[in-house]
Amino acid sequence: MSKYFSEERSAEVVNARMGDAINPRLKEVMASLVTHLHAFAKDVDLSQEEWDIAIDFLTRTGQICTEERQEFILLSDILGFSMLVDAISNRRPEGATENTVFGPFHVANAPVREFGETISLDGKGEPCLFTGKVLDTDGTPIAGACVDVWSDNSDGYYDVQQPDIQPKWNNRGRFITREDGSYSFVGIKPVSYPIPDDGPVGKLLGALGRHPYRPAHMHFLVTAEGHQTIVTHTFVGDDSYIGDDTVFGVKETLVAPFTKTDGSETSWLSEFDFVMVRA
Amino acid sequence: MSKYFSEERSAEVVNARMGDAINPRLKEVMASLVTHLHAFAKDVDLSQEEWDIAIDFLTRTGQICTEERQEFILLSDILGFSMLVDAISNRRPEGATENTVFGPFHVANAPVREFGETISLDGKGEPCLFTGKVLDTDGTPIAGACVDVWSDNSDGYYDVQQPDIQPKWNNRGRFITREDGSYSFVGIKPVSYPIPDDGPVGKLLGALGRHPYRPAHMHFLVTAEGHQTIVTHTFVGDDSYIGDDTVFGVKETLVAPFTKTDGSETSWLSEFDFVMVRA
Ligand SMILES: [Cu+2]
Ligand SMILES: [Fe+3]
Ligand SMILES: [Fe+3]
Repeated sequence: MSKYFSEERSAEVVNARMGDAINPRLKEVMASLVTHLHAFAKDVDLSQEEWDIAIDFLTRTGQICTEERQEFILLSDILGFSMLVDAISNRRPEGATENTVFGPFHVANAPVREFGETISLDGKGEPCLFTGKVLDTDGTPIAGACVDVWSDNSDGYYDVQQPDIQPKWNNRGRFITREDGSYSFVGIKPVSYPIPDDGPVGKLLGALGRHPYRPAHMHFLVTAEGHQTIVTHTFVGDDSYIGDDTVFGVKETLVAPFTKTDGSETSWLSEFDFVMVRA
Repeated sequence: MSKYFSEERSAEVVNARMGDAINPRLKEVMASLVTHLHAFAKDVDLSQEEWDIAIDFLTRTGQICTEERQEFILLSDILGFSMLVDAISNRRPEGATENTVFGPFHVANAPVREFGETISLDGKGEPCLFTGKVLDTDGTPIAGACVDVWSDNSDGYYDVQQPDIQPKWNNRGRFITREDGSYSFVGIKPVSYPIPDDGPVGKLLGALGRHPYRPAHMHFLVTAEGHQTIVTHTFVGDDSYIGDDTVFGVKETLVAPFTKTDGSETSWLSEFDFVMVRA
């Protein structure tokens, strides 16, 4: 048998070239990647012209990236790859709060605010009270947990996307749970927004007959000593994009109640408990 | 069954999102790509940290690309993906000359030279006479075929890599076959060279325990009316990298004889016939 490349043995030949003394995990990952990529090309009889298009697409995707824009993450997101990696890394027992994609808009070290305080600094949108408890899987309240939250404003933009328009830390804050595990803050009823779609990934979405929208959601990053961190959102169930989030972030258990509460200080109420798994 | 994303049904959910009215070939290719990429992530239980590394690698690969440098093609090359696409597109009957990778160093419209003329303009290297015939698969000579050739110089660089050092069109030329299908030109006995390895792809090669070298070869692009174009190289069989070309371009049938011919005008002789398939 020839030691040279052949269509039949292509992945095998490539993988046999790896050195013996290399990082074993790198070897495992690359061997699998090469095997699946070659199987893909063979499955579809990928043409030279299609390969040209792919090279050009990847190049433009890399070149549009800046400090503020990460087009490869968008690409991973719209192919469900980000959600898959998140799912693989965060398999949890039934009853524990599920993870979803982190997204590109978190900012570390948001202001720590008081129980019940508002995070909406621009006065836009419909005020909504978010409240609930952080619990252990056995139902024990977790006191002192950090509930870090962020959302877009009622125009569909995060503060970091409009640094000249929105107040700094608009719709962001950290809240520390009380003795009974409870958290409470005022935000706005979330609104849906498109992911940035003026680049190669947006064009791809268009060619695939897909829209760039995410259903309305509030982001939560819940941390507590001795417990696995939860990175998740709660979703507005009656959002028109709830069934076709462009990044596939929705899970049944993350659809939260949003109740109209006219007459109270806020127009809406959303109660949601977070259930953490011991680390 | 939930319409939402799940680890189990991840690729299915993503592919179901594609529109009905889109280009059917795009749909086929993307569905296969998503299926294989998700299978890869599941096979290796890809971690969040590994995903971070991949995003960063792809971004840097895109950002190092310029008019003169195409790092994604290099990546495709060292993963054997370029050779695979070439193989898929150029399946030929036994006896026909096999294709290999085009490579990034071809320049269109090289000077058309006379039968027997030299392409080596810098006077470096060991002169070698390249000669043979261009034939049909039934053995009929093909007159008027264009044999477009190019190679690195004896320092291992193509003229386009050293525009300030090498004469323009150094080691390049086009030759038209005579009535009997013959071609003949003087070049240099090819020398091995590394692909550009100062970028992300070079680092990856290092991490994989691989070197960046290609065994010595002469590039040929053979075109003739009514026949499939041949894009190939001939290789020097005793090159130390013949068994481990970093881009997997070597095929048994492309290893050409290089014979020492002391006493004649050139030091080496390499005879090779090209057999073309009717289009
Ligand atoms: Cu696969
Ligand atoms: Fe978001
Ligand atoms: Fe070359």
